Amino acid sequence: VGGCAAVQGMACLRCWVEYETAKTIVIRNKVVGSVFRLIQFLIILYVIGYVCVVQKSYQVNDSVISTVTTKVKGTGFTNISGLGAHVWDVADYNIPPEGESSFFVLTNMIITPNQMQSSCPELPNQSTICMSDCDCTEGSSDVRGIQTGLCVNYSETVKTCEVLSWCPLEIDTDLPENPLLAGAENFTVLIKNTVTYPKFNFHKRNILPDVNSSYLKQCEFNRITDPHCPIFRLKDMVAEAEEDFQTMATRGGVLGILIDWSCDLDFPEHYCGPKYSFRRMDNKNPENNVAPGYNFRFAKYYKTTDDVETRTLIKAYGIRFDVIVFGTAGKFNIVPTIVNVGAALTFLSLVSPK
Amino acid sequence: VGGCAAVQGMACLRCWVEYETAKTIVIRNKVVGSVFRLIQFLIILYVIGYVCVVQKSYQVNDSVISTVTTKVKGTGFTNISGLGAHVWDVADYNIPPEGESSFFVLTNMIITPNQMQSSCPELPNQSTICMSDCDCTEGSSDVRGIQTGLCVNYSETVKTCEVLSWCPLEIDTDLPENPLLAGAENFTVLIKNTVTYPKFNFHKRNILPDVNSSYLKQCEFNRITDPHCPIFRLKDMVAEAEEDFQTMATRGGVLGILIDWSCDLDFPEHYCGPKYSFRRMDNKNPENNVAPGYNFRFAKYYKTTDDVETRTLIKAYGIRFDVIVFGTAGKFNIVPTIVNVGAALTFLSLVSPK
Amino acid sequence: VGGCAAVQGMACLRCWVEYETAKTIVIRNKVVGSVFRLIQFLIILYVIGYVCVVQKSYQVNDSVISTVTTKVKGTGFTNISGLGAHVWDVADYNIPPEGESSFFVLTNMIITPNQMQSSCPELPNQSTICMSDCDCTEGSSDVRGIQTGLCVNYSETVKTCEVLSWCPLEIDTDLPENPLLAGAENFTVLIKNTVTYPKFNFHKRNILPDVNSSYLKQCEFNRITDPHCPIFRLKDMVAEAEEDFQTMATRGGVLGILIDWSCDLDFPEHYCGPKYSFRRMDNKNPENNVAPGYNFRFAKYYKTTDDVETRTLIKAYGIRFDVIVFGTAGKFNIVPTIVNVGAALTFLSLVSPK
Repeated sequence: VGGCAAVQGMACLRCWVEYETAKTIVIRNKVVGSVFRLIQFLIILYVIGYVCVVQKSYQVNDSVISTVTTKVKGTGFTNISGLGAHVWDVADYNIPPEGESSFFVLTNMIITPNQMQSSCPELPNQSTICMSDCDCTEGSSDVRGIQTGLCVNYSETVKTCEVLSWCPLEIDTDLPENPLLAGAENFTVLIKNTVTYPKFNFHKRNILPDVNSSYLKQCEFNRITDPHCPIFRLKDMVAEAEEDFQTMATRGGVLGILIDWSCDLDFPEHYCGPKYSFRRMDNKNPENNVAPGYNFRFAKYYKTTDDVETRTLIKAYGIRFDVIVFGTAGKFNIVPTIVNVGAALTFLSLVSPK
Repeated sequence: VGGCAAVQGMACLRCWVEYETAKTIVIRNKVVGSVFRLIQFLIILYVIGYVCVVQKSYQVNDSVISTVTTKVKGTGFTNISGLGAHVWDVADYNIPPEGESSFFVLTNMIITPNQMQSSCPELPNQSTICMSDCDCTEGSSDVRGIQTGLCVNYSETVKTCEVLSWCPLEIDTDLPENPLLAGAENFTVLIKNTVTYPKFNFHKRNILPDVNSSYLKQCEFNRITDPHCPIFRLKDMVAEAEEDFQTMATRGGVLGILIDWSCDLDFPEHYCGPKYSFRRMDNKNPENNVAPGYNFRFAKYYKTTDDVETRTLIKAYGIRFDVIVFGTAGKFNIVPTIVNVGAALTFLSLVSPK
Repeated sequence: VGGCAAVQGMACLRCWVEYETAKTIVIRNKVVGSVFRLIQFLIILYVIGYVCVVQKSYQVNDSVISTVTTKVKGTGFTNISGLGAHVWDVADYNIPPEGESSFFVLTNMIITPNQMQSSCPELPNQSTICMSDCDCTEGSSDVRGIQTGLCVNYSETVKTCEVLSWCPLEIDTDLPENPLLAGAENFTVLIKNTVTYPKFNFHKRNILPDVNSSYLKQCEFNRITDPHCPIFRLKDMVAEAEEDFQTMATRGGVLGILIDWSCDLDFPEHYCGPKYSFRRMDNKNPENNVAPGYNFRFAKYYKTTDDVETRTLIKAYGIRFDVIVFGTAGKFNIVPTIVNVGAALTFLSLVSPK
């Protein structure tokens, strides 16, 4: 038994200390040799130049987590017939008062005041015009209300089906050609943005540490002169997106404020900053488009002295500004490095002749 | 010295032009040979079939950036005792008027009109029922208000603690079994969605270029017949999620409208389109569930002639539709290709015998 | 021809059955052998220990899709001079009534009641104080309104330019030192969160299956005792973020409720749960800060008996709670496994001597 164990021990020891190596011969050949060297050189070039420098394949990535708060400043003035002179401040034109990462600025509108729950003749169109009550079906739901089944005079000349609805009905065909709140182009917005890369425990704000309060009080974003100022003039943002504010404001639209936080965290932190860009997100050209622009309806509710509910319906056209924060941060990590270099070496070993 | 330099030069030249190769012997053996060939064949199969075709490991990915706008259409009709006949349009049932990527449709509600800041007896339950003032502690905050410390008659038979609150208190126990706005199931919503893959500078809308305006005016989404129509009937969406609209509408809920923009951008652009799917996001089954359904409270504020503030409190039950856009786009890139093929070749070289 | 074919056949067969192998010699050397064995051992250690265990490089990842609903509970009480005793319930302090994944709790405010569209003297500051009408330019837009061009008495001593605006103007300098709704710290919020990993068809809620309704009715989140309760006391959340509620409530702020759903789906599902953490997202320290805290303006609109629109302007200070859901799930997949092991083997083969 002891002898056997001894033999086993010997065997194990041998497998530990001995190693194989291939018998090789050295051939001298200018052409073949040069070719091999060249290929190897190219591969090494690829690894260093492309994989490492261009693609940064030695990094792991994390995607951004962000919080945005916005604050619009400015006062608008309108003089609508019927409504009279009216000054609009942020509480009036910013609806709803506070958005998570987007804000809306009212620029144009159709106002229908003093609506009440009652019945009135429909607006005339091929489906609502009627000769007699037979043409109207009671209870049938309509775009604007519920038909009562009666056919009543809309005007001297035309009769339409009567509907139960908020009357008088909104006539949303006559939208002002020019935005009522043309002055909105000079409103400014302060955008505060905090980002986090949880994987790297990295936190930063778009208000950079090296700007002081006095500067922030009076600065205004400009790509060349003030690229780090977080206060934006609405007109400038729309212009950056190569749009005209007044035309966009008439029918409304959606403007994307893209903040790119892509960072290489192998560099010092202060190299990692926000890059702003602006894009119109909705499509403006009319072909194959439905309901162009951007608008929605909201109402202010009142009660008359005799406790009847009335409302002012507002079809609000305006620009919705979506603050879209994106980006990925990369940091050196051993695994992707090994993987990429490893793969490259494989090719290296292929061309190195056996 | 010159001779030494010459020697060095010779040496350098030699290392450039000469190369090693291993001495090899060729063995002829049907079994072993076949086995090796087979294994190599399998690995090549894996690389081509799985890595390339199935997993598309030769691509780099980018995740989607998206903007959503929604527009609900439809009119509802209710006839609540006390409130009387009432027609609901989008300004009434869509609260808040405009959401970023989600919209809410009111389907059921508990209305408490004419609330005023005053004091009234609490609703009777084991904690509020009292015999004398001693049972009520002044100033103690309650679910519905602040106790005044008095014990007053709630009815002939029962006394409860008095609270300072918006009175009369809302009695939210008697929720209508059937949704008041049952007609909401026939409302339609137009969803406009623009996506961007910044890394590939790719932009697209869910309104595809090949659909024309006339079609958009009258179409309605249907998975089979109209898969590209961006107008959805609420009932159909809920049905797609395998839910019943009326039951869901009674207590409210959250419905996810998932738009999948996963694309292979190596193919032409028109292959990349939105894939719609629908899921109920909240859990409906009652076990281990708290506050089932979806509801929230909001109020409309009025002032009486003698300048006292009153409000109509509405506990709104309804369906919140969350438009969730996701997806990753892939495009050929040399680095992942090298990495994957490289790794596969490693295995190939392992089985090729040394 | 036949002979040629036969030869070709032979050749093909030969290339199939024969294979090369390198001639090798076995050298026995304790030092060199041990070194090689050691290096190989280290590499294997790296593959198993780091790549597999630490980095989980054998997995593919998917990022989370989430839906959040929140429900705040609690009643506040204020006694503001002029406004009198006032009880605040969720419909009053939660503005807008419903957020997608964030909710706002009003804690402090500046109320300006009974504003009307009229003209009144500007608040005195270096730009608005005037001697005569010449100092005021008619029609020039101001922070608070449109100048009428008149210079009128603000008080006995000082004259300022008159503006067309909502009058009386808001005096937003005297913000209460202590939050009016100090009681808000004891409000609670129920957070319902459903997550989806589409790639793995994985769905889960933050209300875990093993908690029952009775527990949910009365529980409250506590990192140690109740880590799975979805009901949070506002004060506790702020404290978790190492902030003081009352100080934060005075000027407002943004608190991030981070829910981490990072999961290793190779483990059974019940190991995959939400991890809550809390961070203050806005920066509180005053240096290089503009408009510190968080506030926005909104208005309640009324009509007087003679049909004139009035409003109550509220500058709302409060805490916005952003529920930020993030995380990536990993699951075993053959491709990354091959890639990583392959790369490691490359290194292994490099040190194994040729």
